[in-house]
Amino acid sequence: MHTILITGFEPFGGESENPSWQVAQALEGWQPNEECIVKAVRLPCTFDDSLPTLHSALESLSPVMVIALGQAGGRAEISLEKVAINYQNAPIPDNAGKQPHGTPVVPSGPNAYFSTLPLNRLANALNEAHHPASISYTAGTFVCNHVFYGLMHALAHHTEVRAGFIHIPYSPAQACKHRAPSMPVGDVVAAMKIAIELSLLDDDATTVCEGMLH
Amino acid sequence: MHTILITGFEPFGGESENPSWQVAQALEGWQPNEECIVKAVRLPCTFDDSLPTLHSALESLSPVMVIALGQAGGRAEISLEKVAINYQNAPIPDNAGKQPHGTPVVPSGPNAYFSTLPLNRLANALNEAHHPASISYTAGTFVCNHVFYGLMHALAHHTEVRAGFIHIPYSPAQACKHRAPSMPVGDVVAAMKIAIELSLLDDDATTVCEGMLH
Amino acid sequence: MHTILITGFEPFGGESENPSWQVAQALEGWQPNEECIVKAVRLPCTFDDSLPTLHSALESLSPVMVIALGQAGGRAEISLEKVAINYQNAPIPDNAGKQPHGTPVVPSGPNAYFSTLPLNRLANALNEAHHPASISYTAGTFVCNHVFYGLMHALAHHTEVRAGFIHIPYSPAQACKHRAPSMPVGDVVAAMKIAIELSLLDDDATTVCEGMLH
Amino acid sequence: MHTILITGFEPFGGESENPSWQVAQALEGWQPNEECIVKAVRLPCTFDDSLPTLHSALESLSPVMVIALGQAGGRAEISLEKVAINYQNAPIPDNAGKQPHGTPVVPSGPNAYFSTLPLNRLANALNEAHHPASISYTAGTFVCNHVFYGLMHALAHHTEVRAGFIHIPYSPAQACKHRAPSMPVGDVVAAMKIAIELSLLDDDATTVCEGMLH
Repeated sequence: MHTILITGFEPFGGESENPSWQVAQALEGWQPNEECIVKAVRLPCTFDDSLPTLHSALESLSPVMVIALGQAGGRAEISLEKVAINYQNAPIPDNAGKQPHGTPVVPSGPNAYFSTLPLNRLANALNEAHHPASISYTAGTFVCNHVFYGLMHALAHHTEVRAGFIHIPYSPAQACKHRAPSMPVGDVVAAMKIAIELSLLDDDATTVCEGMLH
Repeated sequence: MHTILITGFEPFGGESENPSWQVAQALEGWQPNEECIVKAVRLPCTFDDSLPTLHSALESLSPVMVIALGQAGGRAEISLEKVAINYQNAPIPDNAGKQPHGTPVVPSGPNAYFSTLPLNRLANALNEAHHPASISYTAGTFVCNHVFYGLMHALAHHTEVRAGFIHIPYSPAQACKHRAPSMPVGDVVAAMKIAIELSLLDDDATTVCEGMLH
Repeated sequence: MHTILITGFEPFGGESENPSWQVAQALEGWQPNEECIVKAVRLPCTFDDSLPTLHSALESLSPVMVIALGQAGGRAEISLEKVAINYQNAPIPDNAGKQPHGTPVVPSGPNAYFSTLPLNRLANALNEAHHPASISYTAGTFVCNHVFYGLMHALAHHTEVRAGFIHIPYSPAQACKHRAPSMPVGDVVAAMKIAIELSLLDDDATTVCEGMLH
Repeated sequence: MHTILITGFEPFGGESENPSWQVAQALEGWQPNEECIVKAVRLPCTFDDSLPTLHSALESLSPVMVIALGQAGGRAEISLEKVAINYQNAPIPDNAGKQPHGTPVVPSGPNAYFSTLPLNRLANALNEAHHPASISYTAGTFVCNHVFYGLMHALAHHTEVRAGFIHIPYSPAQACKHRAPSMPVGDVVAAMKIAIELSLLDDDATTVCEGMLH
């Protein structure tokens, strides 16, 4: 049986929940086919401990695919992240009180990695299934981007393991406090099942999807 | 058995569906208590025919409460409308091709009516139940406001019949085409059941809810 | 010589300046023609003292026209307000610490007044002159709406005196703290000169301007 | 005399003007000090011809610094772009009717370049001077990013030449058609003079600036 690793984060920024973990948890044990099973791992929302936790999951589980999830409060759609940058600049302290400004994730690492998930295919399929989704070209400069970059760097020489990062909107419970767009956790779970199934398929070659003007 | 009238609109503005009617339809026949039952009526999205259709429903059904629903594409929350104004100014043609600019809904009617639904109570209860909702102080100047004003005008001397207008976000299917916030129709239905139950209670007197700076 | 009264507010909500007063002040003494001169008056941002200050200016100056200005942080355009509602609901305390919830501005007053400025004409002329502007159908429920309503109520039997309320964006200095849209104070002053000149003309009859869907 | 190259774009997307070129043009011939003078060059908004035009300017002018400007309609602030990605995906056709989907700017180039302008220093100084500005982590996937990437690639072995890309909001004239935030061209010119002066200074080492959550 092959493992598909789905990570979510612990709550941060004053929230009491994080829908990225709620979604990951709901996927634990799900089998997209007879050969694969989802394993969910919760990451601390800290610059120091998130990547060690992820690395140790990569080592112990040897997953065939990895999707890291994060909360993007204020966004209205599922955001399929394209670019992880080698740069961290925290607008708020992380859960350990650390707030790096302008440091690289991996000194001497390349400037950026691209997701190896079939993003065009995912964007089109999710929207066809009525799950609002689009490709995003920035995952920010906080712990989410840090984990996304660290994930892609760890797998840089394992290109057979597809991996990427997906940001999700506030849950309705959170949105009630912020006057912000929301997406029910159950709907995100359904969308992620589609994303996982499609990402196990071969390629993204023939699919086209809209870019961004700026 | 008392009737609660819930109206929704036909699609407009190039859409193939209107979640306000999908929600109304789903509530048809629902009984919030043993004495009341919901009747759903679909209104045309036209300045000329929407109010005659509403008036004829009011006459034939003699409802004890009326909630008119409308789609507000781009809004992220359920919008409990406070104010109906005696003014119509259409940014796009209605479904009959009519586009009034600067005319009153009811010549010589008062400038505005206020919703008689317990809006503060509804806003607080919906958010407590994790249905993002807030009070809105403009229902626009298109057919939604036209119907809201016409509804309150028709009931101006029947203050025992609570009535109001509620705008709802795009459905996820619509939002996929617009890169906009969404709310699943089923979740809006659940929220409207809470709204109906609470609106049958006595008053809004002791409830306080946040206003708007501008 | 006839007086045109332009009011602005003192700072509120933690700001150290209020562009509405900066604009009013810059217009003090300006003469749109040989018969009229602008008098600027600063209003306190409190529910208790703003209207007494305005009323006393109305009495002592007997203006032929009144435009009250207010700051609408977050809006990108000059907002020509159409509707003043008889309702106050403060999301934050005013500058005297008062925070009314759900009370009328004038007990037993009508639900709403409409601006008597030629809003369509103003919106079109300002945009033609490259001052982004649009008509707004809500002035909120804080002190701005309170003053707008109180102004129109005071002039309800003096329909020869045109009056209204205009919201303006953050100044660039303020926007730097809020990551929000801005408009330079000097540009708003230039726009207000156009608005004053046009509002002295006869009527709004033939002008058409776009409304709002919701 | 050293040359500072400032580029702007021709209009695109149905606009009749492009504020990026209006700003560049206004800076033509400006001398931030006795040794440097600005040269403005207009780039076509096409994937095929923009970089050849830029490359030929780089060759003929041998600039000591290059700032490419572009229009970002809808943004409220001056956007100091951090990241150029090796990816083009056009949401609309360019001015030659070309619309690439998912191709690299430079086959076998690195995934991303970072701006070598002192972005933290610029962001802080511009905001202190009341020019709303922030660092952006995506320049989109259209011609702006294409030029940004091509610029940084051309200078990859000339790190003594500072270079970067700055997005600017709609001009007020444009914003009037789009109901969008705006910034007067003259104010952007003043801001760019500050940006040029500061970018000629030594380094960005000690300056700290806020990042983005997502």
